[in-house]
Amino acid sequence: MPITRTIDNAKAERVRRVADLASRRSRERYGRFLIEGPQAVREAVSCRPDTVLDLYAEIRDMEDGVPHDDATPPRFANDTIAAIVSRAEQEGVYVHPATAAVMRRISPDCQGIAAVGDLERMQTDVQDVRFGERPLVAAFWQVRDPGNAGTVIRAADAAGCDAVILLDDCVDVFNPKVIRSTAGSLFHIPVVAMDVAAFFSWTGDNGLATVAADVYGVDGKAPVELPQALADRDFIRRSKAVVFGNEARGLEPGLLRRCDSMVRVPLYGKAESLNLATSAAVLLMSLAMSSHIEKM
Amino acid sequence: MPITRTIDNAKAERVRRVADLASRRSRERYGRFLIEGPQAVREAVSCRPDTVLDLYAEIRDMEDGVPHDDATPPRFANDTIAAIVSRAEQEGVYVHPATAAVMRRISPDCQGIAAVGDLERMQTDVQDVRFGERPLVAAFWQVRDPGNAGTVIRAADAAGCDAVILLDDCVDVFNPKVIRSTAGSLFHIPVVAMDVAAFFSWTGDNGLATVAADVYGVDGKAPVELPQALADRDFIRRSKAVVFGNEARGLEPGLLRRCDSMVRVPLYGKAESLNLATSAAVLLMSLAMSSHIEKM
Repeated sequence: MPITRTIDNAKAERVRRVADLASRRSRERYGRFLIEGPQAVREAVSCRPDTVLDLYAEIRDMEDGVPHDDATPPRFANDTIAAIVSRAEQEGVYVHPATAAVMRRISPDCQGIAAVGDLERMQTDVQDVRFGERPLVAAFWQVRDPGNAGTVIRAADAAGCDAVILLDDCVDVFNPKVIRSTAGSLFHIPVVAMDVAAFFSWTGDNGLATVAADVYGVDGKAPVELPQALADRDFIRRSKAVVFGNEARGLEPGLLRRCDSMVRVPLYGKAESLNLATSAAVLLMSLAMSSHIEKM
Repeated sequence: MPITRTIDNAKAERVRRVADLASRRSRERYGRFLIEGPQAVREAVSCRPDTVLDLYAEIRDMEDGVPHDDATPPRFANDTIAAIVSRAEQEGVYVHPATAAVMRRISPDCQGIAAVGDLERMQTDVQDVRFGERPLVAAFWQVRDPGNAGTVIRAADAAGCDAVILLDDCVDVFNPKVIRSTAGSLFHIPVVAMDVAAFFSWTGDNGLATVAADVYGVDGKAPVELPQALADRDFIRRSKAVVFGNEARGLEPGLLRRCDSMVRVPLYGKAESLNLATSAAVLLMSLAMSSHIEKM
């Protein structure tokens, strides 16, 4: 049973190193990343146990008024944590019981459970992406906000996308805030960072039509309204990659021109716009639903 | 021209009172609320100038190295602020130029512009809600997170909803964080708080079918999958109110049983769930798009 002795020194070098994985520099230096909170850790342990190196789980510091000692098996802080630990043990992950103070030092946001993952094992080569029956890919260009990036990965997962592509200079997907916002979806679908040239080469090789999600269009060409696109069976049937732009600036004209088509989410009320996460969810889920109806 | 003299004392009683409107207690005591940031202030001034009592706008503290004095007209901190001020003047709103320090004291999140609104003038009696050609209402039961509440009001606006109903114990819609998250939509559509009994009485009186957005169903009855509901022309044509539950707990069984039908957003990948804001956007926008297609 790979449960080690309880870590009770919040100032220990090991604890500091785990906490430091919140910074990109430490992640790059050690080739590891931090997974915080029950939902993300559970999905990592369940779906990608090969990537999980160590798990840190909060114990009840005091049992019947007596501090925990390692002579008895640890009692974890709550049932959620105990269930994840049990699953991790089955998968052969090293489990480190730790005091509440140690867990707080690892991350104030971890709700008693955190894990360290291996960056290299999380890398997916884009050539290894496997497509379903009707390929759908979500690509995001220069998404910068960690919460947005996580939310759009979760939406792409819900829509059954085959992969998420992060184009050019996006937020680091191994930022703990991104991982938390994915609610575990980072461990469900491949997320691949690449540049625009590699993206168009890959979509071309794989017969994916590129669809820009855009409001204004380019060169006097307006985007097709989403309801019209959804009613177009040929469009729904095509393998495709939908490309979303930066939160503030959208997509640049050069990128828009290279896409095969443009689609816009309509606005029926007085709202000026939808935010990136909402637009992406509406567009991807609508395409997925239309595709599933069309196949029935 | 209702521009008053420059406010330059961040410790002034007036400034403290405006800042205090961030708390519910102050809002209730003074019957006023705080609108922060260019987007929300612009929409308030453009769409509901009757509700705006005072506008505070940041000036350039120094002009060519000389502190501003009130002998010359104020130069505002940037073009966005100047444009909103100009619109506010046309609408007869009192504009108070203020120093950067004063604006920071009013709200660290206001980006140089804030306004004080009149709570009573923002109240809409539910009997005064006017319906469009195909009535659609979004109702939220016990939504607690300010960011979520704002985002769903914005989504309801984008979907062209006639009103947003906040059921039972929801977050206060005049919480500045809610207002900021609505991106101005609070000033586009009526938002009415009421209890469940009043809601069912109002929907009944107005011939609105009540549709619960729910994942699990109740009494062994499963919700209809959204794509099926969208394909049902009778369902699309009906006047309806869609009811969403609390972020963590969803809808309670008693409320589910009272609704005429239940709809679920499908999940095609491995994601376990969508968050409230995403579900609401997907469901409301899908209904709106299907309704618009069906009318064409």
